[in-house]
Formats: sequence, structure tokens, C-alpha cells
Amino acid sequence: MTREQATEAIRAAREEKGLTWRALAEVTGRSPEWTTAALLGQGTMSAQEAASATEALGLGADVEAALQRAPTKGSLDAAVPVDPLIYRFHEITQVYGTMIKELIHEEFGDGIMSAIDFEMSIERRPDPKGDRVVVTYDGKFLPYRVW
Amino acid sequence: MTREQATEAIRAAREEKGLTWRALAEVTGRSPEWTTAALLGQGTMSAQEAASATEALGLGADVEAALQRAPTKGSLDAAVPVDPLIYRFHEITQVYGTMIKELIHEEFGDGIMSAIDFEMSIERRPDPKGDRVVVTYDGKFLPYRVW
Amino acid sequence: MTREQATEAIRAAREEKGLTWRALAEVTGRSPEWTTAALLGQGTMSAQEAASATEALGLGADVEAALQRAPTKGSLDAAVPVDPLIYRFHEITQVYGTMIKELIHEEFGDGIMSAIDFEMSIERRPDPKGDRVVVTYDGKFLPYRVW
Amino acid sequence: MTREQATEAIRAAREEKGLTWRALAEVTGRSPEWTTAALLGQGTMSAQEAASATEALGLGADVEAALQRAPTKGSLDAAVPVDPLIYRFHEITQVYGTMIKELIHEEFGDGIMSAIDFEMSIERRPDPKGDRVVVTYDGKFLPYRVW
Amino acid sequence: MTREQATEAIRAAREEKGLTWRALAEVTGRSPEWTTAALLGQGTMSAQEAASATEALGLGADVEAALQRAPTKGSLDAAVPVDPLIYRFHEITQVYGTMIKELIHEEFGDGIMSAIDFEMSIERRPDPKGDRVVVTYDGKFLPYRVW
Amino acid sequence: MTREQATEAIRAAREEKGLTWRALAEVTGRSPEWTTAALLGQGTMSAQEAASATEALGLGADVEAALQRAPTKGSLDAAVPVDPLIYRFHEITQVYGTMIKELIHEEFGDGIMSAIDFEMSIERRPDPKGDRVVVTYDGKFLPYRVW
Amino acid sequence: MTREQATEAIRAAREEKGLTWRALAEVTGRSPEWTTAALLGQGTMSAQEAASATEALGLGADVEAALQRAPTKGSLDAAVPVDPLIYRFHEITQVYGTMIKELIHEEFGDGIMSAIDFEMSIERRPDPKGDRVVVTYDGKFLPYRVW
Amino acid sequence: MTREQATEAIRAAREEKGLTWRALAEVTGRSPEWTTAALLGQGTMSAQEAASATEALGLGADVEAALQRAPTKGSLDAAVPVDPLIYRFHEITQVYGTMIKELIHEEFGDGIMSAIDFEMSIERRPDPKGDRVVVTYDGKFLPYRVW
Amino acid sequence: MTREQATEAIRAAREEKGLTWRALAEVTGRSPEWTTAALLGQGTMSAQEAASATEALGLGADVEAALQRAPTKGSLDAAVPVDPLIYRFHEITQVYGTMIKELIHEEFGDGIMSAIDFEMSIERRPDPKGDRVVVTYDGKFLPYRVW
Amino acid sequence: MTREQATEAIRAAREEKGLTWRALAEVTGRSPEWTTAALLGQGTMSAQEAASATEALGLGADVEAALQRAPTKGSLDAAVPVDPLIYRFHEITQVYGTMIKELIHEEFGDGIMSAIDFEMSIERRPDPKGDRVVVTYDGKFLPYRVW
Repeated sequence: MTREQATEAIRAAREEKGLTWRALAEVTGRSPEWTTAALLGQGTMSAQEAASATEALGLGADVEAALQRAPTKGSLDAAVPVDPLIYRFHEITQVYGTMIKELIHEEFGDGIMSAIDFEMSIERRPDPKGDRVVVTYDGKFLPYRVW
Repeated sequence: MTREQATEAIRAAREEKGLTWRALAEVTGRSPEWTTAALLGQGTMSAQEAASATEALGLGADVEAALQRAPTKGSLDAAVPVDPLIYRFHEITQVYGTMIKELIHEEFGDGIMSAIDFEMSIERRPDPKGDRVVVTYDGKFLPYRVW
Repeated sequence: MTREQATEAIRAAREEKGLTWRALAEVTGRSPEWTTAALLGQGTMSAQEAASATEALGLGADVEAALQRAPTKGSLDAAVPVDPLIYRFHEITQVYGTMIKELIHEEFGDGIMSAIDFEMSIERRPDPKGDRVVVTYDGKFLPYRVW
Repeated sequence: MTREQATEAIRAAREEKGLTWRALAEVTGRSPEWTTAALLGQGTMSAQEAASATEALGLGADVEAALQRAPTKGSLDAAVPVDPLIYRFHEITQVYGTMIKELIHEEFGDGIMSAIDFEMSIERRPDPKGDRVVVTYDGKFLPYRVW
Repeated sequence: MTREQATEAIRAAREEKGLTWRALAEVTGRSPEWTTAALLGQGTMSAQEAASATEALGLGADVEAALQRAPTKGSLDAAVPVDPLIYRFHEITQVYGTMIKELIHEEFGDGIMSAIDFEMSIERRPDPKGDRVVVTYDGKFLPYRVW
Repeated sequence: MTREQATEAIRAAREEKGLTWRALAEVTGRSPEWTTAALLGQGTMSAQEAASATEALGLGADVEAALQRAPTKGSLDAAVPVDPLIYRFHEITQVYGTMIKELIHEEFGDGIMSAIDFEMSIERRPDPKGDRVVVTYDGKFLPYRVW
Repeated sequence: MTREQATEAIRAAREEKGLTWRALAEVTGRSPEWTTAALLGQGTMSAQEAASATEALGLGADVEAALQRAPTKGSLDAAVPVDPLIYRFHEITQVYGTMIKELIHEEFGDGIMSAIDFEMSIERRPDPKGDRVVVTYDGKFLPYRVW
Repeated sequence: MTREQATEAIRAAREEKGLTWRALAEVTGRSPEWTTAALLGQGTMSAQEAASATEALGLGADVEAALQRAPTKGSLDAAVPVDPLIYRFHEITQVYGTMIKELIHEEFGDGIMSAIDFEMSIERRPDPKGDRVVVTYDGKFLPYRVW
Repeated sequence: MTREQATEAIRAAREEKGLTWRALAEVTGRSPEWTTAALLGQGTMSAQEAASATEALGLGADVEAALQRAPTKGSLDAAVPVDPLIYRFHEITQVYGTMIKELIHEEFGDGIMSAIDFEMSIERRPDPKGDRVVVTYDGKFLPYRVW
Repeated sequence: MTREQATEAIRAAREEKGLTWRALAEVTGRSPEWTTAALLGQGTMSAQEAASATEALGLGADVEAALQRAPTKGSLDAAVPVDPLIYRFHEITQVYGTMIKELIHEEFGDGIMSAIDFEMSIERRPDPKGDRVVVTYDGKFLPYRVW
């Protein structure tokens, strides 16, 4: 079973069982963000995490094994996504990319924010004018090596 | 003077004067993130903000006027950026895009995080294993209108 | 059942039953534009709307469930559509894009017309020289947040 | 003087003189939408329209002549625009393209909405929840010729 | 049955029956150019045309119905076709596009040749140095509307 | 002087002198279509043609020499043209490409219509419902060599 | 049976039977280059050639018929091939394209080397420093028609 | 002086002096194909070759130095060339690419024809039906290393 | 069985049997890098290598035969890979490409590092600050032939 | 002075002075690989390194300042490079990308080789059959963070 097939099986089982992603996260003992990403084929689970998740989803050993293999990452079909929700994140990079670069370099020097030693959270912040989505990227600063 | 020419003049003056972006933000009375983006051609300043910024930079009325015009936004040359710092933000959208979509829909229903009624902060969080870049996206949830 | 499969099932059932999109809209109690878009995989139906629509189409619970999930939006295969009817809308954006931008900014300041808090109508206006297609976009103006 | 140079000269003169596009439209006696598009290089003016517009802008005979030549149309740099205001129109085509196609065919049969025998208006509609941008496309229906 | 499936069924049946496209055109009572295009999924047949064509091809009611629906047009896989015969038409547009534009504008003013109120013929002209393919495009001139 | 510079000089001189392309064709003794294409950088003139054309345009020996060199052909900026007049020719290839291929093969066998041993005419045909643009492609059939 | 299916069937049968392309060429009585190209879906066989080839391959009448139809040509998946052997031919065009153009024009005047009235050979030339691949393109010069 | 500037200077000087590429090749003592490619920025000349060529062209030490530096190769603007002469070479790769691959592998095993240890000739072969362009690629076979 | 199908069968069998790539390399008697590449469809095995590998994997004669055929190479779906591990190699070429070119030319003159007469190793180097991946490219220098 | 202008000035000065990259590396006290990359606009120098390099090159304070600013990285014009030397590195990623991924994951688990905490060396290894280019990538393994 390929990792892509595992993702499809997970999507189908989750909908059939009526489970939320957050419920699956509780089962695995990880954050909802990481758990959901891993179940969607973007991360590698430990044996125990994979066992808990597939048990909750009523899926078999083939999905359990697939979840423990490092996947070929990349969740989207295209470099420029069309779906409006995902596109807004692309737009933010396009519009604010140079600003982000300037401020990180000003604060840290030449280097990058890691997307590997990285975590992310997605939260709801109540606001009387309309609740807000608060997404936090938290990545280790990696300075360029000079040799 | 086009907005692109204004951006180049601002970059050159800032480097010549040795001003930080954060210092320019204090002069305009806005956050460093918004001020830097606006000075890089991605936002529209009020008359007062433009006057303060150009005074600090030693630039003239043409830049001041340009900063008050709504710019054609988009700070990058390409849909897939090559610069490693900016690319990591692209990579995060590509790898975690479907997860972000699932969790926002699970929490809020069908809609998007606005990239217009939106603000962003970039901070340094000390960490003994290496300081971290913490970037926060804070956008109003906009539910799809049904008619 | 994925949302794409649901769309195909709906297209096939509608043709087999000889139902118009406008008739399906009456069944759901929504506008023809929104109903058609939702049935084509671009919007999320309420439980009642999904039940009415699938009953009229003679489709089962799997389609009904699919219609209540937020879809991955984007109805076209390519960024530049080839079908002449759809291409004309692309052409209008390409030719009149800068004019639209100038006039909206002149009237409202820096911001955008929302494509989320948005509705659209398509009507026929009789004209002795040839009837006309009148398409109306109606979106909330969203001013850029300054912070 | 090329048409592109004329557009740049017009943009610069308009900003220097502090003229609105709507004021220029009154001078030419045409709608603001058509006048602005023509001045931005997307339409051909009559001799009188070009004379009125260039006089108001304080520009010379070379711009006046350029405005009377049929331009190479296309106001954007890319098939997928990055500027958020213009992108929303692209997104509407991507998301609602198949719905538009279905409803026009259902009402009119096989054919298209002309983008040539076409006009467009952009208006503000006050709304207590936030004013709205109302854009109307009005194009002749052109049935496919059968031969 | 989708329109693409209908096209495949028609191609297969035509080859099996050994029918020429011109013979099918006689059956439908239309030109070979229009008939072939419609059978290849690029036009909408009347009930009678569809009935005649499917009868000649020995195909069923599903194909007959499909031929009466307005198709999503576009017969090629790519914007730049690779097949040498089709590429030559692309090349002509690339090489002679600006000349065509100049001469049509010189003769007719600003506007286009319609590709909708349009017909085309393909003929053989005997020539002692090698017979020639003569392709005629015949489209209504559509002047740009000014408003 | 490069061929591109020659084309620009010719465009500017023609507009300044108020010459039509058809008038320039009479001067060179060639068809308007070929003459215009050659002057726009898509063909190679004989010494005499180049002399006549540059004399009429009041241009010098550098343009005259440039017109006698085989140019790098291709008059458009992009594979998919945006200008509506030119796009319609692209659309015809996209929509009718497979039909054209079928009918040429049915009539001539495997081979192509040459775009080199080729000529083209553009004419106006009066029509009470609106005059029509008639474009004729006339290219030698080239059968594939078998070896 | 489509031409693509025929190509796959031929590839499979050839491997199963252990036949070389050169052996198949002897059977058809044509050169190995043309025969291989035709069997790979890039040329049209006569009835006799198709009969000989399919007999040798042990394939049926459907493949035999398919080989006699003019195929949609283009053997590669992408404009820039990735396979190193094929890429080198792409590289030669990219690197030496302008040189080839200059020398052909210098020798023949404006025109092209035909890729239709064309043949090609691929040979091995022994060389003590390592044998060499010698590929010969042999195409009729086609001068541009002037009209 | 960059290599691109050197190429432009060479093109201009050659045309002004009325020198053929073949004459320049005699001056350098190399083949016309290699000499022309090198002068067009695709090869590196020895000190003597560069001196001879620039002397013949009446160019200075800056061009002479530039010709001795290894250039960034690639003579075309696009992966898919538009110029018809150059396009035909692209087409040959697209149409015959898989055939070339099969026959080289059948003869030599897995490996490639080198485009580095490579030479090319372009010749005219008289033919009563129209002279022919004969282009020969001659590259060392490089077998894949196994380790 | 196509080479792509063989690769999928090998991936599935390897996972089912719990074999490492390094174990398979020992079986074939080749390096892990070459063996893995060949098993993933990027190299051609000898009869003995193919037999050993398929025996270890419990696969049949069809896979064994496929492994002995020269494959169409190219292991990725896109020119710009999305998977972060593979993207880093793309990034290195993008960022350091000009440096690599300068230093190789400075040391060797005009030519390339062969990717055919080439081998590669991937090793782990322990490091107290975090182990390191050491990848070595080792390719024959090929000087450009001058003729 | 922008970083791009600094790179051009450095290239010109280096050639004029006849300095090798390796000589410049000795001046800065860093490796040839890092020094060359930094001078070509892909790294940030310390004040001392910039001073040494510009002094050796005979360049001024503006270049010295530019070298100390974090550049927008990316040395190539295109995602798929055309220059044969650089293309070979692209080809290696395309052909061996999946193998590299498998072996790194097998050895280290899920994560990447850093391209930031990274160094590279380029060396010549004498070989009687032709000297070899040995390029070593040495990057820290970064395991994916799980949260």
C-alpha cells in the first residue's frame, strides 16, 4: 500500500466514523496539527502512534505500516494552489516575502527559519468583530555556515 | 515616480543612513512588520506616515506621494521563490496546506482566513538549543456567503 | 465518496432525469448560481439543502454527505482556460484588470472586493440587437488592516 | 511613442495633476470604466476623446496620437495575477467557471458572452455591514454558428 | 456518458465501420468541417443531426444525448501542440500574429474576427508543383463596444 | 542595427508619415500580408524591396540592410497570446485542431500543410449582418518521407 | 484500439519475442530508423508494412489497422525531456541553435530544413578512443515563399 | 565586457564588414560550425583563435579576452523555440526522441551520445528535387558507469 | 511489464520482506547507491544482478527482464521537486550553480563533470553537534571537443 | 549599489586584474567554494572579509558594504538551467533524487540534509583515464520535529 493510498483510506474512514482530526490527535497523543499532517501523508509516525490512529479509524496493518514510512512530502497539486483557503497562504508569501526576509535578517543575520525543526499551531481567537484564525509558525533559526 | 522606483530609493537611503526597519517603524508609529511591508511597496501609508518615513530617510516629496498610493502588490519575482528563506514559507504551504485546510474547516466551517483583514508578527524566542523564529498570522475568519 | 465523485454522479443524474439547474435551485431554496456552484463541488450545503438536492436527483446518502463537506475548490483544469465561454472571463480580467484596480481604489481606498463574502447573478437581458448576458459580482469591500 | 509609453505618461501626469479617473471620464464624455481602460492602454479613443483627455492631462500630440491607435491589449504581467485585488477576479473564474458555463448554456444554448460587444460597470453599494463593490459584466450573447 | 467518452466511442465506431468524416457530414447535412468538429467534441448538434450521426455509426442513445449537450471545448492537450500538422497552425499565429492584427485593424478599426460567429473550410487545390491545402477562416468582424 | 530595432524604427516612421501598410505593400510590389509581415520582422526582403520600403518610410541604410537579413522569427511575447484579436487565432487552433488534422489526413494522407511554402490573405467580405473577416491559409501539402 | 495502445502492445510483444528493432525493419523492408519510429507511433505504415510487422510480432488486426492511421505525433512527455540520452539532443538545439540558423541561412538563404521531407540515420563509428554515435539529419531545404 | 556583449559586437561587426561565418572560420583555422558557435557565445577560443577572429572583425582586446572565457551556454530564449528553422530541430527531438533512444540502446547498451565530446557539420547536398540540408551529429558514446 | 511497474513491484516487495536497500546492494554485489537507483528504475542491471535482486525480493521473471532493459530515466514528477529532502539538492544547484561553474572552469578549463561516467556515495559522518550527511559526486571531467 | 550590481563589478574587476577565485579565497581566509559563492552574491561576508576582497579587487566602499548584506539568493535564471555544466547537477537530482531520499531515510530516519548548515568542496582527482571532478556536499542531518 502506497502512502497516497493510505491517505485516501484514512480520509474515507474518518468521514465514515465521524471522527474529528482533533479526536484523532488525542488518540495519538500528539498535537492536532502534527497528527493531521501525518495522517494526510506529510509526516512519519512511530509504531505506537500509527497503531493508535489506525485502531481508532478501524484500518488495517497495511495503513499502519505505511504511516511509519517517511513519505514523499507535498500535499498540493500545484505550485500555485487554487483553493481559496490555501491560496491565501500563498498570497501572504508573495506579498510579504521580502518583508519577512528583511526582518528576520535584521534580527538574526543571514540564515533561515527552519521548516524541519519547525512546529505550527492553528487556533481560534474570539473577537466581537468576527473570530480570528491565529496560525503560528515556530522554527529554529539556522544561520548559514561559513567555511 | 512609480512605486517600484520608490521602493528602490527607500532601500538605498535606508542602507546609506544605516537605519534599521524597526527604527523606521518607530518613526511611523506602526508595527515593524506593517511598516517594512509598506516601505517595500506592499501597503498604503497615510499622509502622516509617509511624511515621517521619508523625513527619516531624507527622501523627497515624490517618494512621499508614492507611499500614499495603493500599490500593485506582489514582492517576489516568481510563483516559486528561490531564495532559501522565502522558499521555506512556500514549502510550508506546499507540505502543510491540506492540514491547515482541514483544521480551519473543522473549527470554523467553510470559509477562509483573510489575508486582508490580517496582521502578522515576527519575533525571536530564545531557546538554549538555538533561538527560534516565531511568525504569527492573525486573520479574520471569513465564512462563505450563501445566497 | 470524494467530492469529485459526487460531482460526477450529480452531473450524470441531472442529465438522466432531465432536470435543469434552475429546477434544482428551487428544490434547495437557494439561488441558481449558488446551488449550481455547490452541486459542481464549489460550495458546502446544509444538511437540508443536501437532502433536498439528492432526493430530487435520486442519489444516495454518500452524495448527501459529500455535499456537506467543505470541498477543495477550483472548478477548472488550468490557470488559463481553453473553453471559449470561460476564457472570455479570463480575458476580461487580463484586459480590464488594471482599470478595475484603479477604479476600486479610487472609490474605496486600498483593499479588495471579497470573493468569499460574495455573491453573483447571471441574467438574460432582452435586446433587439441580440439578447445580452448580464453577470453581476457583488462582494464586500475589505480594507487592508493596518497594524 | 508606443502605447506603453503613453500609458506611463498618462499615469504620471494624472498623479501630478491630482486628477481622478472619474474626472477624466467626464472630460471625454464616456463612462469611467471605458475611459480608464482606454487611458491604461486597453481601448482606442476617437480623435475628440483623445484630444480632450490629453488636454486635461497637459500631454502632447504624441500621446494624443497613440490613444487613437488600436493597442495590443492585455494589462497584466502574468496569466495568474499576484496583486490581491486583481487575483480575486481570477479566483472567481477558477471557482465559478463551470457554474457560469452551465447556467449560460441552460439559458441561451451553446455560445458565449462576448468580451468585445461588452461593457462593464463598477459601483459602490452602501451596506450597514460594510459597503459592497458591485461589478456588472454586460456582454452580447453570441451563439455558435453552424455551417 | 461524458462528452469525452462520446468522442472516443465515435472515433472507435468510425474506424470500425470504415466511414469517412465526409460521409458522416453528408449524413448530418452539415459541412465536413463543422460535422467533424462536433463529432470530436467541439460543437453541439441538434436532435436530428445527433440521431443521423449516431445511426450511421451504430451508436446508442447515450452518445446521441451527449452530442446535444454544449461541450467543454478545447481539443488539444497543450497550449503548444507537438503534432507537426497542428503545430504549423500554432506557428502561423506566432509568426504572423502581429501582421494579422495590423491589417485587420487597418481595414476594420479596433475589434476582432469572431471565433464564434465563424466558419472554416479546408480544401485541396491541385497544383503541378504539389497540391495545396487551402484553409479559409470566415468570421464576423466584431467592433469593440464603447460606452 | 538589430532586426528588432529595425521593426521599431519602421513602426515609428510609418505612424509619423501616416502611411498604411497597404500603401507600403504597393511600394514594394508585394502583397500587403507578406510586406507587412516582413516589415514587422518576419520575412527577408530583396535588396530592391528593402530599398523601396525604406525610401517610402524615410529610413536609412541600416534599416535597409536589416530588412535583407533572415530574421529570428516569432512576433509574439508568449505562447498563449493575450491580445483578443490574436487570441482568437490561438483559440481556433485549440478548438478545431483535431478536426483540421482529421480532414487533412483524410484528404491527403499523412503529412502537413507547409507554413513555409505558404501564403496568406486577409480580406473583408461585406455582409448585411456585419462585414466578415476572411483569412485564407494556402500552404503546400508535404507528405511525410518514408525511407 | 488507439495508436497509444498499439504502441504499448508492440513494445510488449517485441520484448516478449526478443526481436530487435533492426530485425523488425528487415521484415518491413524499411530503414531501422523509420520502422522504429512508425512502430513507436510516429509514422503511418502501408498495409503491407503493417501486415509484415504485426505478423512478426504476433499481433492482431487491430494493431495492424492502427499502424495504418496517421498518428498524433510527439513521442515525449515534456518539452524539456529528462532522460539523459534524449536530453542531449535537446541540449544541442539549445546550445547550437543560433549557429545552425546562421549557417543554413548563409548557405541557402531564408528558409528551413524540412522535418517532413526528412530522413535520419543513426550509426556506430568505431573509434579507438571510444566508438561514436553518428546521427545524420537529411531534410529538404524549403525556401520561404514570397507573395 | 560580458560574453553577451561580445556576441552582439561580433554580430554587428560581421554585418558591417560583410564577412561570412565561413570566412571567419578560415581565419581561425577551425570548422565553420565550431567557429560560428564560439563566436555566438557557445564555445571557448584559444588565445590565437580569438586574436585572429577579432583582428578580422576589427574588434578590440575586450572582445578578444571575452572569447577566451568559458561562456554560460545556451543560445536560445526559450525551451521551446519559436523561430521555424530552430523549431524543426526541437520537433525532431519531440517526434523521434523515443526512436533514437531505442536504436542507440540496441546498438550500444545503456548510455548516451555525448554532447561535449561532440562535433557537428552542416552541409548542402544537391538534389534535383530540391537541395537538401545534411546535418551530422557525431558524439562519443558514453556508457553509464556502474559502481 | 513496464519499467515503472517493475519499480512499484520492487518497492512493495521490499517493504513486505522488510529488506533494506543496503541488504539488496550486498546481494547484487554493487554499491548501495547504484543498486538502489537501478532498482528504482534509473539504471540497467546485468543478468546476474537482476537475478540476484529479484530472487532476494521474491519477484518473478518479468521484473528480472525489466531490470535488464535501459529505462527512461528521471525519478521525479517535476522539474522543481516539492519533497523537502530532494528540494534541498535542487536549492544547492540554484544557489551554488554559478560558483560550481566558475571553480570547475578555473581548475579544468571549458567542459563539464560527466553525469554518466559518474558515481555517487552517501555517508553518515558522526558529529557531536549533530551527525552529517556527506554526499560525494565523482564524475569524469569532459573537455569540450574543438573541431 | 544593489547586490546584483556588486556581483557584476566583482566579475569585471576580477577579469581585469587577472585574479583567480582561489587567489581571492586566500585573501579572505575562507575556502574557495564559500568565497566564490559569496562574491557571486550567494553569501554574506564579515566586515573584514569584505574589506580584504574589495581591496584585492580594487573596488570601493559601496561593493564592500553590499558584500556585508544578506543577499536574495539564487544564482540562476531558470528552474531548469541550460548551461551544460550546471544542467548536469540538475540532471543528477532528477535521476538520482528518489535514490538519495531512500538511502538518507534508511540511514537517518525522516528528515533532510541541511542546505544551510552545509558546506561543499570541489576537487580534482587525477585519474589515468581522465581526471575527475569530485564534489562533496556536507550538510547536517535535520530530523523532522514532532510536536
